[in-house]
Amino acid sequence: MARVLIVGGAGFIGASLTRRLLGEGHAVTVLDDFSTGSRANVEGLGAAIVEGDAREPLPGAYDWVFNLACPASPPHYRRDPLRTLTASVDGVRQALALARRCGARLIHASTSEVYGDPLAHPQRETHWGHVNPLGPRACYDEGKRVAETFALEHRRAYGTDVRLVRIFNTYGPFMAPDDGRVVSTLILQALRGEPLTLFGDGSQTRSFQFVDDLVDALVAYARADRAAIDAFFAARGLGIPLLNLGNPEERTVRELAETILRLTGSASPLAFRPLPGDDPRRRRPDIAWARACLGWAPRVPLAEGLRRTIAYFAGVEGRP
Amino acid sequence: MARVLIVGGAGFIGASLTRRLLGEGHAVTVLDDFSTGSRANVEGLGAAIVEGDAREPLPGAYDWVFNLACPASPPHYRRDPLRTLTASVDGVRQALALARRCGARLIHASTSEVYGDPLAHPQRETHWGHVNPLGPRACYDEGKRVAETFALEHRRAYGTDVRLVRIFNTYGPFMAPDDGRVVSTLILQALRGEPLTLFGDGSQTRSFQFVDDLVDALVAYARADRAAIDAFFAARGLGIPLLNLGNPEERTVRELAETILRLTGSASPLAFRPLPGDDPRRRRPDIAWARACLGWAPRVPLAEGLRRTIAYFAGVEGRP
Repeated sequence: MARVLIVGGAGFIGASLTRRLLGEGHAVTVLDDFSTGSRANVEGLGAAIVEGDAREPLPGAYDWVFNLACPASPPHYRRDPLRTLTASVDGVRQALALARRCGARLIHASTSEVYGDPLAHPQRETHWGHVNPLGPRACYDEGKRVAETFALEHRRAYGTDVRLVRIFNTYGPFMAPDDGRVVSTLILQALRGEPLTLFGDGSQTRSFQFVDDLVDALVAYARADRAAIDAFFAARGLGIPLLNLGNPEERTVRELAETILRLTGSASPLAFRPLPGDDPRRRRPDIAWARACLGWAPRVPLAEGLRRTIAYFAGVEGRP
Repeated sequence: MARVLIVGGAGFIGASLTRRLLGEGHAVTVLDDFSTGSRANVEGLGAAIVEGDAREPLPGAYDWVFNLACPASPPHYRRDPLRTLTASVDGVRQALALARRCGARLIHASTSEVYGDPLAHPQRETHWGHVNPLGPRACYDEGKRVAETFALEHRRAYGTDVRLVRIFNTYGPFMAPDDGRVVSTLILQALRGEPLTLFGDGSQTRSFQFVDDLVDALVAYARADRAAIDAFFAARGLGIPLLNLGNPEERTVRELAETILRLTGSASPLAFRPLPGDDPRRRRPDIAWARACLGWAPRVPLAEGLRRTIAYFAGVEGRP
């Protein structure tokens, strides 16, 4: 049994991670400010719930710390860009200080957004990324990039056992209905009988990772022996463990919408809208390192993941 | 007369900026922790000198604030990478908070390092840059990038009159002798009769800006009327004023060494060494915006700038 702290644990990913870790018998504490996460996501499960600010010193002693604390969808992270920046740059420092103080292993959630508008497809962990430091997404992208740099240098200075993951597009139960992501938006439109909004002709591709697959990888990564992890990344010339976690299978947004219509039995029409200027950029993970390091690969087919996500939203909406 | 605070004002650029502003009759306060800057650089001139940490709240009320506080040469910024990161990310926030509190205009020094290993030559302000978030320079590059993002979002949130400059390779009096930069290193080797170290065959090019040219631009930028500045950058699609400041004229390092030998009358030989793996990358500023916005261009020829820099180092070394 490990003592586990999940910072930002009341968000979408934290909700599933909390359930998994509790199910495996770990002692789980969730710390969240409930600014984008929701208390209902983690209440009554047996986890200790602490309302707190991830940018302030973190109390307690743990074996594993997961740092998931940052608004991650554009409508959320643009709501208060300065807060988004500080969630990244102060949040990672507090998590690192806690890990150093109590000798915890820290799994820090970075993002495929650090690749920005990438110059190579698919993206390997060694890709430097291509980000506009003064663009509308910079508060998220640049904050997350410098958080990785803080982790790297903290590890060099103090030997902290910090491990990075760059999480690609993920969906599943507990997504916030208002987060503006394509999967939750289309499912809710289908359930409500509203037209399903597609931008452009819907032929742009995305890769969609079901949250349970991500949680598999996070837990395997946290369990992995330090010596083995360090050797794996030293052999690859990296100063810090770093894994892409995502589903490399690409689907068109139109295919996604049609699958959702089929699974919900909705009669909603498709509604095509002009592509916005800041349409999310195409990204696809190269997961060769995660396969080799953790023996991990995504397993949940899109239709299956969507079925479970639809069931969740149907419950939230009070529909059969 | 303006009330001016120069944060990090005891460093190389601050030393010349302080002299210029005092010469123009302004009331100048220099705040520095003297970690890389030196008290001797600004003592006895008439500026108020405050020993302080740029990462802590800044007292006082000013019309103009220049934020120059960050170690900027690789040997300095690699000495304590976490401190370098916090100098950027906490330093800019304190400077922004001060500017907001007292309604000051803030000139924030960013760097050509935000372009990293650039994908275009010369670099325009709209180039996104190409930086390794987990490389040996990341503590400087990524810290400086996210500092720009903080400035952008602070301006959006509070209307702060913050203006960014990306400073390219600069040389002149008051450079720290131990900063490992090519101009100071070669001049000191020439003055000491030691071999002048060149890497590779010395054919790599650099652009060198004399510090007085930079100071001209900084002062003109600080003086410029807000409405004119805002209109200039709004017309160019930028959410924040941003100017490259550097000398676009490229010289080979060998030509630099030979000019230094000629000007010092030194009989030192040239010593060729293998190129190190992290050799500073070639960068050349596009200064069209600085020309158009400030009517500015570098004026001091390389030989003249070197002569003045050599005179400074000869004095430091106690040589005629």
